[in-house]
Amino acid sequence: MESNHYKDFSNIGCTVPSRVDKRSKKDPTLVNINGIQIGGSEVIIIAGPCAIENREQLLETAKLVYAGGANILRGGAFKPRTSPYSFQGLGEEGLKYLAEARKQTGMPVVTEVMDTRQMELVCGYTDIVQIGSRSMHNYPLLKEAGKCPKPVLFKRGMMATIEEFLLAAEYILCEGNQNVILCERGIRTFETTTRFTLDLGAVPVLKRLTHLPVVVDPSHGTGHSWMVPSMAKAAIAAGADGIMVEVHNKPLDALSDGKQSLYPDDFAQLVKDVEKVAHAIGKKLLLHKPAPV
Amino acid sequence: MESNHYKDFSNIGCTVPSRVDKRSKKDPTLVNINGIQIGGSEVIIIAGPCAIENREQLLETAKLVYAGGANILRGGAFKPRTSPYSFQGLGEEGLKYLAEARKQTGMPVVTEVMDTRQMELVCGYTDIVQIGSRSMHNYPLLKEAGKCPKPVLFKRGMMATIEEFLLAAEYILCEGNQNVILCERGIRTFETTTRFTLDLGAVPVLKRLTHLPVVVDPSHGTGHSWMVPSMAKAAIAAGADGIMVEVHNKPLDALSDGKQSLYPDDFAQLVKDVEKVAHAIGKKLLLHKPAPV
Amino acid sequence: MESNHYKDFSNIGCTVPSRVDKRSKKDPTLVNINGIQIGGSEVIIIAGPCAIENREQLLETAKLVYAGGANILRGGAFKPRTSPYSFQGLGEEGLKYLAEARKQTGMPVVTEVMDTRQMELVCGYTDIVQIGSRSMHNYPLLKEAGKCPKPVLFKRGMMATIEEFLLAAEYILCEGNQNVILCERGIRTFETTTRFTLDLGAVPVLKRLTHLPVVVDPSHGTGHSWMVPSMAKAAIAAGADGIMVEVHNKPLDALSDGKQSLYPDDFAQLVKDVEKVAHAIGKKLLLHKPAPV
Amino acid sequence: MESNHYKDFSNIGCTVPSRVDKRSKKDPTLVNINGIQIGGSEVIIIAGPCAIENREQLLETAKLVYAGGANILRGGAFKPRTSPYSFQGLGEEGLKYLAEARKQTGMPVVTEVMDTRQMELVCGYTDIVQIGSRSMHNYPLLKEAGKCPKPVLFKRGMMATIEEFLLAAEYILCEGNQNVILCERGIRTFETTTRFTLDLGAVPVLKRLTHLPVVVDPSHGTGHSWMVPSMAKAAIAAGADGIMVEVHNKPLDALSDGKQSLYPDDFAQLVKDVEKVAHAIGKKLLLHKPAPV
Repeated sequence: MESNHYKDFSNIGCTVPSRVDKRSKKDPTLVNINGIQIGGSEVIIIAGPCAIENREQLLETAKLVYAGGANILRGGAFKPRTSPYSFQGLGEEGLKYLAEARKQTGMPVVTEVMDTRQMELVCGYTDIVQIGSRSMHNYPLLKEAGKCPKPVLFKRGMMATIEEFLLAAEYILCEGNQNVILCERGIRTFETTTRFTLDLGAVPVLKRLTHLPVVVDPSHGTGHSWMVPSMAKAAIAAGADGIMVEVHNKPLDALSDGKQSLYPDDFAQLVKDVEKVAHAIGKKLLLHKPAPV
Repeated sequence: MESNHYKDFSNIGCTVPSRVDKRSKKDPTLVNINGIQIGGSEVIIIAGPCAIENREQLLETAKLVYAGGANILRGGAFKPRTSPYSFQGLGEEGLKYLAEARKQTGMPVVTEVMDTRQMELVCGYTDIVQIGSRSMHNYPLLKEAGKCPKPVLFKRGMMATIEEFLLAAEYILCEGNQNVILCERGIRTFETTTRFTLDLGAVPVLKRLTHLPVVVDPSHGTGHSWMVPSMAKAAIAAGADGIMVEVHNKPLDALSDGKQSLYPDDFAQLVKDVEKVAHAIGKKLLLHKPAPV
Repeated sequence: MESNHYKDFSNIGCTVPSRVDKRSKKDPTLVNINGIQIGGSEVIIIAGPCAIENREQLLETAKLVYAGGANILRGGAFKPRTSPYSFQGLGEEGLKYLAEARKQTGMPVVTEVMDTRQMELVCGYTDIVQIGSRSMHNYPLLKEAGKCPKPVLFKRGMMATIEEFLLAAEYILCEGNQNVILCERGIRTFETTTRFTLDLGAVPVLKRLTHLPVVVDPSHGTGHSWMVPSMAKAAIAAGADGIMVEVHNKPLDALSDGKQSLYPDDFAQLVKDVEKVAHAIGKKLLLHKPAPV
Repeated sequence: MESNHYKDFSNIGCTVPSRVDKRSKKDPTLVNINGIQIGGSEVIIIAGPCAIENREQLLETAKLVYAGGANILRGGAFKPRTSPYSFQGLGEEGLKYLAEARKQTGMPVVTEVMDTRQMELVCGYTDIVQIGSRSMHNYPLLKEAGKCPKPVLFKRGMMATIEEFLLAAEYILCEGNQNVILCERGIRTFETTTRFTLDLGAVPVLKRLTHLPVVVDPSHGTGHSWMVPSMAKAAIAAGADGIMVEVHNKPLDALSDGKQSLYPDDFAQLVKDVEKVAHAIGKKLLLHKPAPV
């Protein structure tokens, strides 16, 4: 609960466009995905591999993260890779495995779309459409996401100010899609021990400025799996509505982001630890039924 | 407890000099200040005004932060101000008020030194010598701090990599002073809604690399008092050994940093909230006796 | 001429992918646009408005920049705007005015494409396809640009390392298009007096690592029209193959980037000044016939 | 000559303190060092080794840079080194060699001071006192420099905004010393191919805001000797009043900054090349008498 002393809204020096502005919509936006609500008093866990590499890897990881306490499964079929020579994702084949994993575990799924031409295809398979950090400034893609019937997990650009992030989210809302989940995933700074600098200050700033839910990705935000548990707990303590973490059934064999992917048993421990922090700030973890045998 | 999976020390790409290196000293360094230990299982709260402005302001604020749960009193007598036309601090007069506040409350005190010529003077009054962010690269000052008999609260430069921070700490240890408390206080980035970007990822990185205790300053790290409670909780959840927060008896009248200074009642609430987070991660708050009447 | 002392290629710590690597292609790439060569001993001037606002504005500005010494006309029809409420460009209507301006002045034209679905349309009108800073990481767009028959003016992402810039350029070359012109246009830093920080050091670095031509955009790189002449001269002195500057017939009325747009007479003066610097480093300006009456 | 179109001073968003403000002093400040004027129509070359390593190295390098065209000799006796285990400089012994080099070549000398306690000592030997980048925020040191009778070469902090740089310079002027030469030497960014990012845009910004002369250090600003000639030419084209470059008689043997130190013959070539650029923008190089035999 914010103190009564700090009511002044005007001292942040940030233009907040009207549709995302908290002052235009008193109640926080609750994004509903197959019955899972993001943005309320329950903390949400999104987990899964960076990239869908093959059927077995995805299904195996999906079962393990479900057992560990994940609510939503993540996995990339279209991958924005820095080098053209890196694994680029399985494309539609990956989307099919994702749908199969959803069927087996009951978890809704989230996957990234990079190209306006693929929005319809991706929307046909996924429960949440992800717009990645490298696409935050891809305004044609944002407009398409604004027209799609699925909620959008919208990642902050690694180079974007919070003002630009909110203005970009406004592009989606302008087209009619109100179900936008903001995601802080680390910004680029001069520091070199971490892949990015996770800007957890963005959580209270976004919570003050907008009614949209905010989740944090400590995997990309740090680049080191051993940092993920600490930063996941910190994200929840800072007020995030959930976390998104990379988990791989065999991190050492991962085709991408293996260094920042958790082992499934470490993920299960992380969920238990995060739950305690959630309780400490008056929230709960969203529980799910035991994994189907 | 860090997972057994992540034993590899070598993938951070950071030179760690020998004296601060965790591999050279298995047990964490516990810095002892008049019976208060920093670096163990108890979380420490340092609080007080940015600058000592006058006797009444300091003594009043000192009583209030003690009542709210602070363990150590902060207050600046020599202030590194961006503009030569800003209030530069009371100098030795401020140090005397600090000594008086210690006597009245029983709390040890910490204050900044900026000039090699003042090290002896400051050491004569304070329990902990602070080296501020703007002085992190002031190597002659670090050498003097290394020779002084008091523990050093050593703030990361706003522009310094973690590697440079550790190398600078090594300057202090090289001269014989092992009692160094590292402090993350925000780094400079392109983001403009906050004064600095608080790099909470520095907490697990420093904890992995060095045996020295680590505290976090969410006041400078954000620049907004309304962000301080969120980031204080996040800092503890990330594994910090304590926090240092700016509190002023009348923030609106502060001669410096009023926008980031807490009201005393909000500080007292923050301590209660931080305590819950500390419990959630298996730590405690250091309790003190009720304030003397 | 680089000194013989500095032959070592290996000390930059930058992965250079094979197709853009200077070591894989001894001679510099000369990009030919209707007889204009970029990358040789003649410095090229690209000029025009940020956005095409209407027929009169474009045709008037085109004549004026031609008269001032421009070789290539720039003008945006599809504009990546930070806010959804800003002018988004005229779309195909703008492309038609661009074609008309080319016909009237004889200058080839360059315009930005933002969406894979518009690549064919834009290629049908323009002589050079521009990929803007916000699209540098838009890999599907880069792949389409790699398949298009026109040269690509490829701008560095505002927060992209040079390594990432080269890897992104490789995406274009991989698809078969070798005619890529790299453009430094300013990176994001903590400095606030300028819109971006123009990284002129990127010019010698790129020249050392790749065979591709390099131009500089001092308009976006600074955000202030009064800085453009100084930085244009500096860019040429640093070794750039050309500059791209924003010029508007009425900067005060511009719908975008007015603050960084030159008046036509200041542009004409800039060309004269740049010519002297080009001579000083052993280059020439590409001359064109007098403007058709 | 700046265009009449761009008279508006107010759109930079930078507080300029009164003593450094161009509006408070119409004529540019000309700093006079033994007859050498910095800030007028003649470009000045400062050159020499990063650190004074021994008598022979300094005297040899001094003769070579004089022969190559240097006007002022640089050399560090007190070195701010990131690691306590790196060579820290010769101290007063180095100052004595510097005085000897001045006697042999006739060139005035510049050297860094890091500690308030050494200001008097350093002033006794040097013609210009240097305040280095790591000391830009060392306000007690700036106050001492303001009281010293020698001109000050004042380097921008590697993470300081231009506003902070000007406010820090004001500290020096406030104490009575008007002879301050500002030096841009590169700022810290995310880019990793260069040691720092040389912010040449700072040159026109500083020239617009203040009457103080501005020089550029392309050696620290890039970290690569092969980049220094390009960036030196660019600095002059951008309007700098001079450059400061590191030259070593044997760069491969240098105890510090060898990678960014020029060979003497490359330095001589650089001077010739810089001279042409200076002519191109209507300036001259300050010539000196042939080296004494």
